[in-house]
Amino acid sequence: MKISILKDELYNELQIVSKAISPISPQVSLRGIKIEAKDNKLVLTGSDADISIQKIINKNDDNKLNIIEEGNILVDVKYLLELVRKVDSEIIEIEILDGSLLYFHGGKAKYKINGLNPESYPKIDFKVNDESFSLKVKDLLNIINQTVFAVSKKDTRPILTGVNIKTQGNNLNCTATDSFRLTRKIIPFNYNNEFNVTIPAKVLNELKSSLQLLDNDSDILISINDKKAQFVFNDTIFQARLLDGEYPATDKLIPTEGQFNYYLDINRRDLINAVERSNFIKNENIITNKLDCSKEEIILSNKNQEIGEFEEELVGKFEGENFEIVFISYYMLDALKALSGDDVKIKFTEKMKAFIVSDPSDDSITELVLPTRHLS
Amino acid sequence: MKISILKDELYNELQIVSKAISPISPQVSLRGIKIEAKDNKLVLTGSDADISIQKIINKNDDNKLNIIEEGNILVDVKYLLELVRKVDSEIIEIEILDGSLLYFHGGKAKYKINGLNPESYPKIDFKVNDESFSLKVKDLLNIINQTVFAVSKKDTRPILTGVNIKTQGNNLNCTATDSFRLTRKIIPFNYNNEFNVTIPAKVLNELKSSLQLLDNDSDILISINDKKAQFVFNDTIFQARLLDGEYPATDKLIPTEGQFNYYLDINRRDLINAVERSNFIKNENIITNKLDCSKEEIILSNKNQEIGEFEEELVGKFEGENFEIVFISYYMLDALKALSGDDVKIKFTEKMKAFIVSDPSDDSITELVLPTRHLS
Repeated sequence: MKISILKDELYNELQIVSKAISPISPQVSLRGIKIEAKDNKLVLTGSDADISIQKIINKNDDNKLNIIEEGNILVDVKYLLELVRKVDSEIIEIEILDGSLLYFHGGKAKYKINGLNPESYPKIDFKVNDESFSLKVKDLLNIINQTVFAVSKKDTRPILTGVNIKTQGNNLNCTATDSFRLTRKIIPFNYNNEFNVTIPAKVLNELKSSLQLLDNDSDILISINDKKAQFVFNDTIFQARLLDGEYPATDKLIPTEGQFNYYLDINRRDLINAVERSNFIKNENIITNKLDCSKEEIILSNKNQEIGEFEEELVGKFEGENFEIVFISYYMLDALKALSGDDVKIKFTEKMKAFIVSDPSDDSITELVLPTRHLS
Repeated sequence: MKISILKDELYNELQIVSKAISPISPQVSLRGIKIEAKDNKLVLTGSDADISIQKIINKNDDNKLNIIEEGNILVDVKYLLELVRKVDSEIIEIEILDGSLLYFHGGKAKYKINGLNPESYPKIDFKVNDESFSLKVKDLLNIINQTVFAVSKKDTRPILTGVNIKTQGNNLNCTATDSFRLTRKIIPFNYNNEFNVTIPAKVLNELKSSLQLLDNDSDILISINDKKAQFVFNDTIFQARLLDGEYPATDKLIPTEGQFNYYLDINRRDLINAVERSNFIKNENIITNKLDCSKEEIILSNKNQEIGEFEEELVGKFEGENFEIVFISYYMLDALKALSGDDVKIKFTEKMKAFIVSDPSDDSITELVLPTRHLS
């Protein structure tokens, strides 16, 4: 192999592919980025077995790609990125010198690197299924932002570490829960096939950081089968293994109109600020808040025998008999921050049952929070 | 005690004082900020026994300080800063309710905090010595920036974890070394007294972050005796315990004109960039570079059997017989970055003896680097 290419172009694309790579992978070949030069294009591949990213760089006037000799190389990501970033010229040349010894050349600086054996790299099937649909970048980012925060951070029930995405009539239902709170985003969706898959949160977080570099209105082609999800954009294939197992039936956990006995309407930002003000009182890093509601006043409070007490009267509208409820501060903040309207409507059934935090102006998103007992 | 004050003013000043505090200090009272209200002023104190900071807030129209009742309180820094930052009003009120129970009050939010007992706080003598001198903020920052990086990070010789500052004729000599490299800054200095003290690097780093908030041309009053150094600015006293023990006689380690056999003149930024380019080759995080110099060419190189090789021809002027030397990359980079001119002059005596990195346009600063052997 012998190629030359604009250094900045190569560096940017290597960065995208490197997001899939774990530099300390026990499988040494997976610490590398594979670069294939053939048919007037470069194909970059990175993978940690869970996420695989393939990027195709086609020859064009902007990237000044020149393939002098076809071939494949595999280079440890931790040397490659640093080397390319600091090369002292606009164009970088890469050449196989002898076996797996690689030669990188910029201006006056000359680098020789011991490459890894490209034959040792696992075969990864990037073929995109025929069955696919597309979503706008902004819609996919919205789904990720409004769900991924609520997945379980513990491995005790692995299926809960992902976001469940399923077709449901003419809708797409996206749900995440750690069994203490739940978030559900439903958007209109027309698609001939049905699917019900759970995508690891780690995958969605990496995907998010790739999507953020794109135009909000561009389309992402998505293909999902039982084994993997593929996201195609910008000559990039981002594919991920799905979580095994059946996602719990969560829809029946969500109370529906008719079950609610108490309603609180309040400014979303005001409630966020008040909860955050109360957060100086921490009990082994768990913070609980109490809401005391009546038609006359709405009081948010928080106390800890050792530290002290917090109390704030909130401005809002409460409907129902006098009512008090205690919740974990972070769950309430996550729920409030997943919404975007000026106001929220909080709907309660009973003191020890899950309640709903919703946006009166956007019924696509539902937040469910389990109450708790006061810790001190 | 009962006071009120502009919240932002109190928060900013608490932040300055909190720099001295270790929130996990085994001595519980030292986790607190002490606030004394008397004689129409607030006195804030924070300390970790090594560094103590006292800030006086005098009543004025800007800070809206109002002392309704004099008194003292002591509050855990980790609750106090967070509480004050988030208070929901311009003015904050603080009051002792009962014993050590404190009441903070902003807009609608009310906070009660269990204070610490102010009587348990150690007596700290902030009286400033009569013997003092002053330095401009920018000059003191220069001294810190050009010396503190070179102190020893290990505790094996505690005296080397500080910067030695001593009077020397009509100069002030500021030296730091970890015994593998040394930096020395000498500035003209007229003072009637002599001193020779070693200030812990930790102190200078904290002082730096306080100084960076000040006008570069303002004056810092400095008082130094055998036990402590005091820096006075802006109604703030920043005082620090000095390191015990005698600083080694380092001046004799620095070779002088007449001892040098080889000279290299080179652009400082070019050399920094070349050394950084070579740094992708790491050997257990130690990086060594080799310089091969002759009148014809100057080659910087770096190699590691497992990773690969780097080589770059540098543009510079070398005087002397053909010469090669190996050094630790980070020491060279630290030395080069401590200087500020466009060019550097590197002066060598012998292959295995310390060499000097100097700025031809600024003889106040001298960098000494010990060579090493190539690691692979």
